[in-house]
Amino acid sequence: MAALVVLAIPATALADPLPSWNDGDTKKAITTFVESVTREGSPDFVAEGERIATFDNDGTLWAEQPVYFQLLYAIDQVKKMAPDHPEWKSQEPFASVIKGDMKSVIASGKQGLMKIIAATHANMTAEEFQANVASWLKTARHPKTDKPFNEMVYKPMLELMDYLRANGFKTFIVSGGGVDFMRVFAEETYGIPPDQVVGSSLKAKYEVHNGKPAIIKLPEINLIDDKEGKPVGIHQYIGQRPIFVAGNSDGDYQMLEWATSGDGPRFGLILHHTDAKREWAYDRKSHIGQLNKGLDDAKEKGWTVIDMQKDWKVVFPFDKQ
Amino acid sequence: MAALVVLAIPATALADPLPSWNDGDTKKAITTFVESVTREGSPDFVAEGERIATFDNDGTLWAEQPVYFQLLYAIDQVKKMAPDHPEWKSQEPFASVIKGDMKSVIASGKQGLMKIIAATHANMTAEEFQANVASWLKTARHPKTDKPFNEMVYKPMLELMDYLRANGFKTFIVSGGGVDFMRVFAEETYGIPPDQVVGSSLKAKYEVHNGKPAIIKLPEINLIDDKEGKPVGIHQYIGQRPIFVAGNSDGDYQMLEWATSGDGPRFGLILHHTDAKREWAYDRKSHIGQLNKGLDDAKEKGWTVIDMQKDWKVVFPFDKQ
Repeated sequence: MAALVVLAIPATALADPLPSWNDGDTKKAITTFVESVTREGSPDFVAEGERIATFDNDGTLWAEQPVYFQLLYAIDQVKKMAPDHPEWKSQEPFASVIKGDMKSVIASGKQGLMKIIAATHANMTAEEFQANVASWLKTARHPKTDKPFNEMVYKPMLELMDYLRANGFKTFIVSGGGVDFMRVFAEETYGIPPDQVVGSSLKAKYEVHNGKPAIIKLPEINLIDDKEGKPVGIHQYIGQRPIFVAGNSDGDYQMLEWATSGDGPRFGLILHHTDAKREWAYDRKSHIGQLNKGLDDAKEKGWTVIDMQKDWKVVFPFDKQ
Repeated sequence: MAALVVLAIPATALADPLPSWNDGDTKKAITTFVESVTREGSPDFVAEGERIATFDNDGTLWAEQPVYFQLLYAIDQVKKMAPDHPEWKSQEPFASVIKGDMKSVIASGKQGLMKIIAATHANMTAEEFQANVASWLKTARHPKTDKPFNEMVYKPMLELMDYLRANGFKTFIVSGGGVDFMRVFAEETYGIPPDQVVGSSLKAKYEVHNGKPAIIKLPEINLIDDKEGKPVGIHQYIGQRPIFVAGNSDGDYQMLEWATSGDGPRFGLILHHTDAKREWAYDRKSHIGQLNKGLDDAKEKGWTVIDMQKDWKVVFPFDKQ
């Protein structure tokens, strides 16, 4: 009879919900928070509709080295489109992209980047763009691991999002990356539906062309969902202050600051990339995913810092367990 | 035994999910569509994640006569704020608002309206604005029915949204009204959480004031979520083309057109206000909620038109049943 009772308890209630996390302070802080906000009658109880969790994407859910994956997409697209654009051979930043001269591409600055975005992300329908991204994800491989980019995701973070959802949280991405880009894979990769992805975006217009209505992506910035843009993006798209936020760089600082300064229980989480062997080690001086002020202030702000090397049993799903 | 089997069938499977709708073509068209997209193995089956339904608000979920309720809010706020703004006595459109001269207010046009919005919807934190709206909803009454505005909702449409959600649809508001305004009551009134409300919005900025972070609403338009703005708003906020759309005016035309021209089964629904006795009767010549092109094209486009007088047993929840 006792055996039957035990069998009747769902397996999830017994199993460790975060098996890729080493036991220790970080994991304990997460589970203690989730248990306290979900226990009815607890002074920290939070109603289900208010259990909003937001996650940065680049460097928090998937890797961002040697450079943001979306930039690699843009570069691949420029190379693919180059035969139809002979003029690019003498136009910067396209000439440097085609030659693979990344230093000159970066030296072209914001204006150069905007030209690359305009050429690869705009002046096409939203559906054409999504089809291009889907096709790229199927064939492109990461320069270091030779894995598809949507496998370069952090297994412990996938478990964390599953764990939060199993506890009545609604999980959102809030990323500096492009919203239309992330929506192509967010549901399959992270279990996050398109309407729960917040990101940087271009303006768009509605047009009926030959009787066929479509959304056309325009070469003009609508929202830069980074730094101060993150709380603004959360306000505009989600409409509630999250109680759980996770990021990895100073681009997430304002999101962490805003969310964790709200009333009631709040949880701020920073992923510190400390694992040069299994992933990459970078922080204060990195050009990608710089983490400086966040590291300085985490303790005072009460934010939990993940030490990737120490806290994670495994990094990528394809790693040996 | 047979009785036990019957008892074991959930009550919802037996009960009419749309009791406030008269039996007839309109109700039949809705239930036939929902059954076909949810029946596994049906050629029209749509996976749950793609069952996106969008509803206009003013005139579709709640009434919009004699004038949009949000404008009544703005007018009440101007009157409430007037003692602190003696200069308004000689400034239009404020002088006319205070005098209750609505003709002059309307004659002040877009510029006048923008001044009223700036005074009542901007230069405050998002939380202050929401508190003001919540407090107004508690005390303000509709000029004709003397009911709170959030009771001026259409019972048949509440049932329709419940019915869709029970069948795996995700329901969204997509309205020309202000998103921050609607989010105050959308969850309680419609069962729609803040992140599933899309609407017109002002720009906003993030600011830390005396160590307290806040979102400040700015007196600048971000998105006009009306006409061509509706498909754009859906693209930016929801990221998927809806398969079920409901509206009542030509402001919803492009949303209906875009959604119903997608591949696979699609359902477009127009609420035609034909009931001068229980609600209001207006369409082609109305200044509020004009429905002209939509009425002309509904048949050709395959959109279902609700005849309020004929199709609805009851209009408001407070009506005698």
